[in-house]
Amino acid sequence: MKTIVSSAAKTVTIDADGAFVIIGEKINPTGRKKMAEALQTGDLDYVRNLAVEQVKMGADLLDVNVGVAGLDDVALMPEIVRLVAEAVDVPLCLDSPNPRALEAGLAFAPGKPLVNSISGEESRLQNILPLVKARGAAVIGLLMDDEGIPPTPEGRLRVAEKIMERAAQAGVPAEDVIIDPLVMAVGSDSQAGLVTLRTIELVRRELGANINLGASNVSFGLPDRPTVNMAFLALAMGAGATCAITDPMKYTGFIRAADLLLGRDDYGMRYIRYFRMVQALNPPPK
Amino acid sequence: MKTIVSSAAKTVTIDADGAFVIIGEKINPTGRKKMAEALQTGDLDYVRNLAVEQVKMGADLLDVNVGVAGLDDVALMPEIVRLVAEAVDVPLCLDSPNPRALEAGLAFAPGKPLVNSISGEESRLQNILPLVKARGAAVIGLLMDDEGIPPTPEGRLRVAEKIMERAAQAGVPAEDVIIDPLVMAVGSDSQAGLVTLRTIELVRRELGANINLGASNVSFGLPDRPTVNMAFLALAMGAGATCAITDPMKYTGFIRAADLLLGRDDYGMRYIRYFRMVQALNPPPK
Repeated sequence: MKTIVSSAAKTVTIDADGAFVIIGEKINPTGRKKMAEALQTGDLDYVRNLAVEQVKMGADLLDVNVGVAGLDDVALMPEIVRLVAEAVDVPLCLDSPNPRALEAGLAFAPGKPLVNSISGEESRLQNILPLVKARGAAVIGLLMDDEGIPPTPEGRLRVAEKIMERAAQAGVPAEDVIIDPLVMAVGSDSQAGLVTLRTIELVRRELGANINLGASNVSFGLPDRPTVNMAFLALAMGAGATCAITDPMKYTGFIRAADLLLGRDDYGMRYIRYFRMVQALNPPPK
Repeated sequence: MKTIVSSAAKTVTIDADGAFVIIGEKINPTGRKKMAEALQTGDLDYVRNLAVEQVKMGADLLDVNVGVAGLDDVALMPEIVRLVAEAVDVPLCLDSPNPRALEAGLAFAPGKPLVNSISGEESRLQNILPLVKARGAAVIGLLMDDEGIPPTPEGRLRVAEKIMERAAQAGVPAEDVIIDPLVMAVGSDSQAGLVTLRTIELVRRELGANINLGASNVSFGLPDRPTVNMAFLALAMGAGATCAITDPMKYTGFIRAADLLLGRDDYGMRYIRYFRMVQALNPPPK
């Protein structure tokens, strides 16, 4: 199944046959003090630089989240969406739990953006799906509902089925719904990674949907988080994940390597081109 | 299926339910000039240190290969086997294409060693399987035969079936045959990684055998080989590989992370213990 998103100038296809799609995670103040301060003080250069840097380092889309306590996200979302859309030419992923902030931002996002996110929760389905339909956007569906996060892959599949049904009823086609199986911290539950991997396999097999990961949650509380995150990215790619909201500065090279190993990079050119680009940015000391 | 190997003091079980088993690759002169020189000049301290270091860094077994052009491997193999068996208490994997060198070494390997390797080639099946049976060892079977390396997963499965049949006829039980799907360089064939991954899945499903990887070949000729090797280790572990001949200094931490993500490390204790051990060896600068 192909999910197609776009900016004014660029189209990105999310698909198991193509390269894994990287959604840059860094324009998000959650747990990022500097970004929160930049949004509070209106330091737009900081935000603009992070947009440009992420795209240079391999982000195919950019996630845009402006959620800071005390700030008016309905006013801020369109402002930051416009800023980022002027700075870079990749499609955007508008990220907010607030339907009004999403609606305000969607009016200014060029092309066909991605909305992050709905879930099996009634309030999100009812309030956000109509916006996705009206804007002709694609949407990420998280595998949780009003009862919480199902502990088993089969339970999460049932939430995925509900989300797909409700999307269809709202007029959003199946290929425009990307499923996020939810990645829990493996440091607090040793089976959490395995449950997510099995969920990916099950949802791919039963529904054929594209799969997104919020990959970095998996290592919460553990030492040497990048090692855990890389191992998880590769395992999830092998299981059938097709995109991730992640850090392009840290993980693009590893993701390109995994794409090559999965037969998605003819002659390894994409991997080698990325390596040379990074090498040119960081020449070894003479 | 459980493959059990042992030294005089230690038993190691290779099994999809347990932690991935690391076979330290560094006592092998192929492409390692210093090791070749150490074997030529009889620098046994060098070999001993590499044995101790690899086990400290997480090797569960050690591969022992003494193949240097011009040296008498039939005399050298038992000497190095004895040296390594005195230095460390892990099971050994005797690695030689020469049946007489294997036979000489097997006489001095304590416990139940592993033999690396047979293949579908008639000469290896006929000459090495009787030694494996006589010594009560386990053996690695490479998926190539007298026609070469089959290009498809199905072709490689047929070689695996032949190896298992011939092992059974020689009195070597199925659980003592570990299949090596063969890892080719992805830099010269973009599909090489995928074919190996599909072979792993197919052999696991059809034969249930344990799967070994000579993991580092995959990145031959590419820049930043460790990144490619790590991605491949995780993908192969996800596909069902259960052990690898690899570099414990570089990859044990990553392998422990993948084990944790695959639900094989209760409370993450194995991963955290490894991280703390490495941190204690390399304290950050004050």
